[in-house]
Amino acid sequence: MLQVGITGYGTIGKRVADAVRLQPDMAVAGVAKTTPNYEAESAVRRGYPLYVAGDGADAFRAAGMDVAGDLEDLVTASDVIVDATPSGVGARNAELYARYGVPAIFQGGEAADLVDASFNARANYDDAAGADAVRVVSCNTTGLARLLAPLDEAYGIEKARVTLIRRGGDPGQTGRGPINDVLPNPVELPSHHGPDVQTVIPGLEIDTLGVKVPATLMHTHSVNVTLQSEPDADDVRELLGGESRLFLVPGRAGIDGAGKLKDFAADAGRPRGDVWENCVWADSIAVRGRDLYCFQAIHQESDVVPENVDAIRAITGSATAAESVATTDEVLGMGLGDLLSGTVRRAPSAATGIVGDD
Amino acid sequence: MLQVGITGYGTIGKRVADAVRLQPDMAVAGVAKTTPNYEAESAVRRGYPLYVAGDGADAFRAAGMDVAGDLEDLVTASDVIVDATPSGVGARNAELYARYGVPAIFQGGEAADLVDASFNARANYDDAAGADAVRVVSCNTTGLARLLAPLDEAYGIEKARVTLIRRGGDPGQTGRGPINDVLPNPVELPSHHGPDVQTVIPGLEIDTLGVKVPATLMHTHSVNVTLQSEPDADDVRELLGGESRLFLVPGRAGIDGAGKLKDFAADAGRPRGDVWENCVWADSIAVRGRDLYCFQAIHQESDVVPENVDAIRAITGSATAAESVATTDEVLGMGLGDLLSGTVRRAPSAATGIVGDD
Repeated sequence: MLQVGITGYGTIGKRVADAVRLQPDMAVAGVAKTTPNYEAESAVRRGYPLYVAGDGADAFRAAGMDVAGDLEDLVTASDVIVDATPSGVGARNAELYARYGVPAIFQGGEAADLVDASFNARANYDDAAGADAVRVVSCNTTGLARLLAPLDEAYGIEKARVTLIRRGGDPGQTGRGPINDVLPNPVELPSHHGPDVQTVIPGLEIDTLGVKVPATLMHTHSVNVTLQSEPDADDVRELLGGESRLFLVPGRAGIDGAGKLKDFAADAGRPRGDVWENCVWADSIAVRGRDLYCFQAIHQESDVVPENVDAIRAITGSATAAESVATTDEVLGMGLGDLLSGTVRRAPSAATGIVGDD
Repeated sequence: MLQVGITGYGTIGKRVADAVRLQPDMAVAGVAKTTPNYEAESAVRRGYPLYVAGDGADAFRAAGMDVAGDLEDLVTASDVIVDATPSGVGARNAELYARYGVPAIFQGGEAADLVDASFNARANYDDAAGADAVRVVSCNTTGLARLLAPLDEAYGIEKARVTLIRRGGDPGQTGRGPINDVLPNPVELPSHHGPDVQTVIPGLEIDTLGVKVPATLMHTHSVNVTLQSEPDADDVRELLGGESRLFLVPGRAGIDGAGKLKDFAADAGRPRGDVWENCVWADSIAVRGRDLYCFQAIHQESDVVPENVDAIRAITGSATAAESVATTDEVLGMGLGDLLSGTVRRAPSAATGIVGDD
């Protein structure tokens, strides 16, 4: 039973803890947090040993929460650490993990050169073998890697061009914007996502552009991939439909955006309404010569959670990629598409006639 | 002096009327409206003869507004009609204009097959010569045509791929959404914009994808153009900077999105804070082999206004393209870039290092 310590118990950390707890081969050694806020309360309710990072232990005790120790205590109690602290904090913690020889998994907010390997379960699971530190790439990069890896294997990718329409902030990030605007962000090419995808799919030709919009629920990607051979759209649907972490949204489901995706996930009983899968609109998959297009939505709060679980097995060498992904998916209940009966509706041929008021 | 009748006095119609009034060779014969709302009041204050479309004349009189006649009266008083009614209404009005032999200009909300030629001043001014009816293409299509026409002339376009991040509604359209979402719209390729651009640039290879977001100020385009020859980014900036209806937004201006673009235009004294130009972020212009990328913002309420003015001269054969565009630009005060001193800052080389929290 792998003892997993989780430092940082915010958006990602609390989800990873809950996912780890469900795995047959893992246990939560404890979670580390800096402030005794509502999320710390939820860790206590779940029975996770609470370690205090920094010098706020008295504040936790004053709030009536038992403190199991400090960050160093958690590291020594753990076989592996998942660091889900805010961007930059992981880099400061890395020396501590290394000093105790505890393998560590960082998040996409840390620089790629902090670790031995960047990680995506679908694209490069085996690169984590024997590493002291790996980095689960960010939500958007994870989403791109899951989509592009099977396309690259099946058809060869000549070049991918993706516009990432990014949520301004998470639902709880009340201080972020924009308000009523669309911001090119960054205004200069490339956004970090393209080079980041190349850390898990080396040699991939990809240009990415980012904008930020006043939405909080999910990111949306407008994807173009020029393939090395001409695909058939139905074949692509079948290929992507066979990927366990891609949810091909059928037209008949009546799901037009992130709001309904989240509602569907909540109806399905998903914890926190999480959507771990890439959500690819089946009807958006279109082929023009060797150009493939589609839209996908990415839940920034949760799509990296199964990847963190797999990274724990990968870095400790306790399972192969196939074994780990199968276990993670089974235990979590991956596969929103399986909840919909019948088959995915095929896209009708494109409408003719040009009418539009904008 | 061309007597111009304007049917539909909403977002586009009221702007076209004000632009026509300023032209040395045109006068507003009158405007037609269905309801005596605040926009009708503004027509009265401007002294535009008010014609009533439909059977609401009594309501106008009850509101204390003089009525000059009905729609038919306006048509007979006009040398040319600009129909800026809601999508579909223009098609119903077309028979009336034809019956009186008055050339008519429709908007992009009408179908392309309603008219003899679709119109963009930069791309195909001369196609309107001798036509009975033309259609000024929509705001987004206008924006694409202005950008793609010079690129096609200078480099040849192999293929354009554009994601249109569309405002959900205009500031006054209080019933439109989405709220806090990003909607693939339409979910199926192509959006109408690609085929629509082909009505003014025949033979252009272009694929367009549309999404809608909770913003009201402007549209934003994420543009990729694969050119037939490899461009230099600075040359592209110089090329686009020489187009009177493209505003190359310099980095030093500190304009990060539509909010500040509108603020800048209002500071400049533009009527209604209108932005007639495409706003292309200079620093977003990037070259990767033969792939050119950029972001541009399009003010959906006003970018077609100068095009409507030019269409009046084009359909009546009263000026060449160069003469008309020069007059329209001079009279309106085109060229937001001219208000900024100095030269456009060049984009620095791309940053290295991959860090990002989403």
